[in-house]
Amino acid sequence: MRYDIAIVGSGPAGLSAAINAKIRNKNIIVFGNKGLSKKLEKAPKIKNYLGFYEISGKDLKDKFKNHIDSMGIEINNNKITNIYAMGDYFALVSGKNMFEATTVILAIGVQYGKPIKGEEEYLGRGVGYCATCDAPLYKEKTVAVIGYNKEAEEEANFLNEIASKTYFIPMYKREGLMRGNRLDDTIEIINEKPVQIKGQTLVNQVSFKNKYIDVDGVFIIKDSASPKTLVPGLEVEDSHVKVDVNMNTNIAGCFACGDIAGKPYSYIKSAGQGHIAAIAAVSYLDQLKIQEKIKLDNL
Amino acid sequence: MRYDIAIVGSGPAGLSAAINAKIRNKNIIVFGNKGLSKKLEKAPKIKNYLGFYEISGKDLKDKFKNHIDSMGIEINNNKITNIYAMGDYFALVSGKNMFEATTVILAIGVQYGKPIKGEEEYLGRGVGYCATCDAPLYKEKTVAVIGYNKEAEEEANFLNEIASKTYFIPMYKREGLMRGNRLDDTIEIINEKPVQIKGQTLVNQVSFKNKYIDVDGVFIIKDSASPKTLVPGLEVEDSHVKVDVNMNTNIAGCFACGDIAGKPYSYIKSAGQGHIAAIAAVSYLDQLKIQEKIKLDNL
Repeated sequence: MRYDIAIVGSGPAGLSAAINAKIRNKNIIVFGNKGLSKKLEKAPKIKNYLGFYEISGKDLKDKFKNHIDSMGIEINNNKITNIYAMGDYFALVSGKNMFEATTVILAIGVQYGKPIKGEEEYLGRGVGYCATCDAPLYKEKTVAVIGYNKEAEEEANFLNEIASKTYFIPMYKREGLMRGNRLDDTIEIINEKPVQIKGQTLVNQVSFKNKYIDVDGVFIIKDSASPKTLVPGLEVEDSHVKVDVNMNTNIAGCFACGDIAGKPYSYIKSAGQGHIAAIAAVSYLDQLKIQEKIKLDNL
Repeated sequence: MRYDIAIVGSGPAGLSAAINAKIRNKNIIVFGNKGLSKKLEKAPKIKNYLGFYEISGKDLKDKFKNHIDSMGIEINNNKITNIYAMGDYFALVSGKNMFEATTVILAIGVQYGKPIKGEEEYLGRGVGYCATCDAPLYKEKTVAVIGYNKEAEEEANFLNEIASKTYFIPMYKREGLMRGNRLDDTIEIINEKPVQIKGQTLVNQVSFKNKYIDVDGVFIIKDSASPKTLVPGLEVEDSHVKVDVNMNTNIAGCFACGDIAGKPYSYIKSAGQGHIAAIAAVSYLDQLKIQEKIKLDNL
């Protein structure tokens, strides 16, 4: 099955894109968090979302949830790790699952943080974002998991079943640490920020301020990959996806909106751009249809 | 008194710009309709303003009104007919009144319609948008008023006190026609669409399908002037103000957002762009301050 529009992200940009694409009767799939944005939930009084004065993040999230529920829009919890432009469609990869869509709207926000030195250089040469996909390559080998969230611990445990040695490098505050073990006992935890991922043809080391560890592979587990690594070939400027005023990226059929498309960061700006991106995707789909019709007529 | 930011328009784009500029503690003035958008009021169920599912235009307008009221934002009813870039500030003209602002955000929407043939060519050479400003020039002369709204009738009556002959050419459905006279009896009504405004150095004729009238001046009374005539020098593309992704126009310090900045037309897109424009204006003002400081330090 091929979707008309795949929307990656369930913040205000992704949701606004979803409701507009749905109104236009497009066949859509939305990847994100069923519970919607955790960032939004934690926001105190929001003053600048026109129409809601001093609404709490939680209440605004509930309004958003109610809106998509009323329209029968569901969020797919699959985490997309790679998106490939295949010519006339996009392949969206999530672990062992693959989804196809004619257009893609990126609305993944900016939680991904700055890449570690060497991360982008060694991507695909020992650095990966998806343990489920690449674990078999590291049977009886040494791997490091650099984790930005709690799910990273599950990934580390899974890798530890296959690898001979697993390091876990938490990039967040591990509240769970004191309340019991989520990580297997045999996993070595390094409570220090990595400085660089090094290697030659392939990765062979992670360095810290005063030490280093030898590894065969590095898994970086974040909420979302940086746009450049998520979509190979995507033009990025100052860590944001480069878009024009219609939310077109440099890849035909691929649109971006919300925080990922640049500052200012705000819910109302994201929602507005989500609308623009959806309409741009719809118009792109219409153009494709016309072109196909012309092709058929000429046969 | 010079304002930091003058916002022209009180639709979702203008209001969103206003609340964001106000949050940033800027000294603002908002020109528009105290009753807010009539277009919005007439909208049936709106489905795509994220957070409000199937809200009526009237209810959404009330939410907007409540939002700006809560923040103490007032709408100034003065109709801006011309905006001049004066170098380090903008002069906004409304009849005999002049307002000054360091930056301008255009959010006037797209109600202005297509110009009549000859309208732009003869602007300032017999064609005007403001009866109050230019009426004295037509003492004992013949004028035509091309009216797009009811207020045009008041303008025609005022002109009729000065001119020797006044034609009124309504471009809208005149409901008032049957319910009593708003127009002076001596005004001649032409219920036909004008085809062209003609002249040599100055205007001398308005032509219709099968006839013409000789005139010395033509007043075109619309809700808003076209952006090109409103702001001399403004770059316009396909009847929209050309903006970049940060809502910059080609004139430094002048920003545009909402329908006037291009399709798609929607409340959420306008509100989103209003936010972007406000933040861009704030950042422009900050830059100016830094430059002034450097200048002073170098004295």
